[in-house]
Amino acid sequence: MGGDHGAETVIGGAEIASIRHPDVRFLIFGDEATMRPVLDKYPRAAAVSEIVHTSVSISMDDKPSQALRRGRKTSSMWLAIDAVKTGRAQAALSAGNTGALMAMAKVILKTMPNVERPALAGLWPTARGESVVLDLGATIGPDAFQLVQFAVMGEAFARVIFSLERPTVGLLNIGEEEVKGTEQVKEAAQMLRSAGLPLNFHGFVEGGDISKGTVDVVVTDGYTGNIALKTAEGTARLIVDFLRSAMSSSLMSKIGYLFAQGAFRALAKKLDPRASNGAIFLGLNGIVVKSHGDTDAEGFAYAIDVAIDAAAADLVQKVAADLALLDGFQPTRGAQTPNSTTEESEAAVS
Amino acid sequence: MGGDHGAETVIGGAEIASIRHPDVRFLIFGDEATMRPVLDKYPRAAAVSEIVHTSVSISMDDKPSQALRRGRKTSSMWLAIDAVKTGRAQAALSAGNTGALMAMAKVILKTMPNVERPALAGLWPTARGESVVLDLGATIGPDAFQLVQFAVMGEAFARVIFSLERPTVGLLNIGEEEVKGTEQVKEAAQMLRSAGLPLNFHGFVEGGDISKGTVDVVVTDGYTGNIALKTAEGTARLIVDFLRSAMSSSLMSKIGYLFAQGAFRALAKKLDPRASNGAIFLGLNGIVVKSHGDTDAEGFAYAIDVAIDAAAADLVQKVAADLALLDGFQPTRGAQTPNSTTEESEAAVS
Repeated sequence: MGGDHGAETVIGGAEIASIRHPDVRFLIFGDEATMRPVLDKYPRAAAVSEIVHTSVSISMDDKPSQALRRGRKTSSMWLAIDAVKTGRAQAALSAGNTGALMAMAKVILKTMPNVERPALAGLWPTARGESVVLDLGATIGPDAFQLVQFAVMGEAFARVIFSLERPTVGLLNIGEEEVKGTEQVKEAAQMLRSAGLPLNFHGFVEGGDISKGTVDVVVTDGYTGNIALKTAEGTARLIVDFLRSAMSSSLMSKIGYLFAQGAFRALAKKLDPRASNGAIFLGLNGIVVKSHGDTDAEGFAYAIDVAIDAAAADLVQKVAADLALLDGFQPTRGAQTPNSTTEESEAAVS
Repeated sequence: MGGDHGAETVIGGAEIASIRHPDVRFLIFGDEATMRPVLDKYPRAAAVSEIVHTSVSISMDDKPSQALRRGRKTSSMWLAIDAVKTGRAQAALSAGNTGALMAMAKVILKTMPNVERPALAGLWPTARGESVVLDLGATIGPDAFQLVQFAVMGEAFARVIFSLERPTVGLLNIGEEEVKGTEQVKEAAQMLRSAGLPLNFHGFVEGGDISKGTVDVVVTDGYTGNIALKTAEGTARLIVDFLRSAMSSSLMSKIGYLFAQGAFRALAKKLDPRASNGAIFLGLNGIVVKSHGDTDAEGFAYAIDVAIDAAAADLVQKVAADLALLDGFQPTRGAQTPNSTTEESEAAVS
């Protein structure tokens, strides 16, 4: 029911994904009267989907606390996540309200041992392919140890999603020297260097390293990660707008555009934000994937790919096993930072 | 003596700037044996320049504390800033070591009343033209009141540099709602709303708003601002690389490129990072402008433009007058946050 374009996006995405993944099956939570006519248009999706009817849905402007009050045990979002908890589904996906999704996912699935706050990890196009960047906005103001947890979780996700044995991990900072940056980042780097974790820690990386693909996993706090992501998206949009208006600025440029159409199509494909769609909440006892609200069926299908890859590779078990390696670390810092409450998460997600 | 290309960039830039600003005069600080032959190649610059010889220069890898020890009262960087203090120059420019430049500028020029930490403000290309973004890395972890100071200083700079009467000011955050973001950002927004300052406060803006040009002045902390800037630069580089390889990927695309050459030239001009060169330290009793280290003469000339515009418009006096409006504000928070020391600034600048 969520996202800017509703059932068409979700069910159209299921249609595409069911071609790529013939074994996948979908539970589609929402209003049957809305869903059924759309599903009837997509025969492949219809063949592998079951509609689970509910008339309650979370709106895009509901605050997480409102969503939890109104949507508890009844809303399509709640029921989809709950299906992961009960084992009826292996992953939940939504194009809806991010804050509500995170709040519900935390309440239903709970955080794993050795995780205090979840992180939202996304794929970022780079010169070398793609990197994982986390946190993209789930946790504001994590401390050093929480950043270490993000590093461990992000590394596990990169292993799974990129089929890499030892992905490299970098901490986002304003310079590569050890004296630079916030206290949290400096302390996290020390922990990662000394923890004896089986983790390929590169050290600090800068903003420009993200799209260079200097490391496979870029770790940062949710405030910085969210701003970096939206700044990059905005920059890309601006340049594409400049390019578009340049190519239509004269007869010559229009002729040039015609000749180079194939190249522009290839470029558009490389810059297609839909291919990076699908951010995953890490640190919860189950897989929950967030699709951009304003994507289309093709974009939603990419988010489904992320969910399927994560589920097929037992990501939750892998993350949990890696986090267990932090057991020896936790006592040194104590438990000053409890998991954030719902009200905190309300402030934390964009 | 600073920057990646040394005297050629600086003196070549002076040549270009002296055409645009026939009244400008330059004091060029550095090794005369290096400077003189370069200056001899640029007749316009030579006619309006005087070399002030010193054999001491700060290297790009000197830490700020080292630079202060080694370069105090003798280095080209120190002498250039000192010329601003003594009134011999109206502005100092450097393409050298940013951290050293800030540390020296603070020691020599001191911060203004009502400013605890300086901010580095730069120009950011947007869909509407350009915006001012600050802080780009001078101050890590400013508190709410310091963000308010940045807002006041950035607004004054935007008035001067864009010739705007009432530039709009936004606080960078991860959403527009009041519940989102760090405590500092939320508190700063409240102060800006209630301060009764003659400042056109727009509220929160997100990463994507920077290149949209939603506001004329984007205020953030130095850690986030530095990462946002470098992320945007990296994104732009990646897209330009993609575009370049797309246009040379086939015979057809190469022919298309030939037809559209004019359009590509116009695009390259719009995306030229040199045009946004020149970040200014705000909050000091004098004008100090930092050029990118890896720019060329044309880029350095843009940084000279910033310095000249700021000096011609009495920016320092305007910033000081605006900051005086914060007089009533200061007591409510007390003076818990002293100006950062040199060692702190060493950690603070990228």
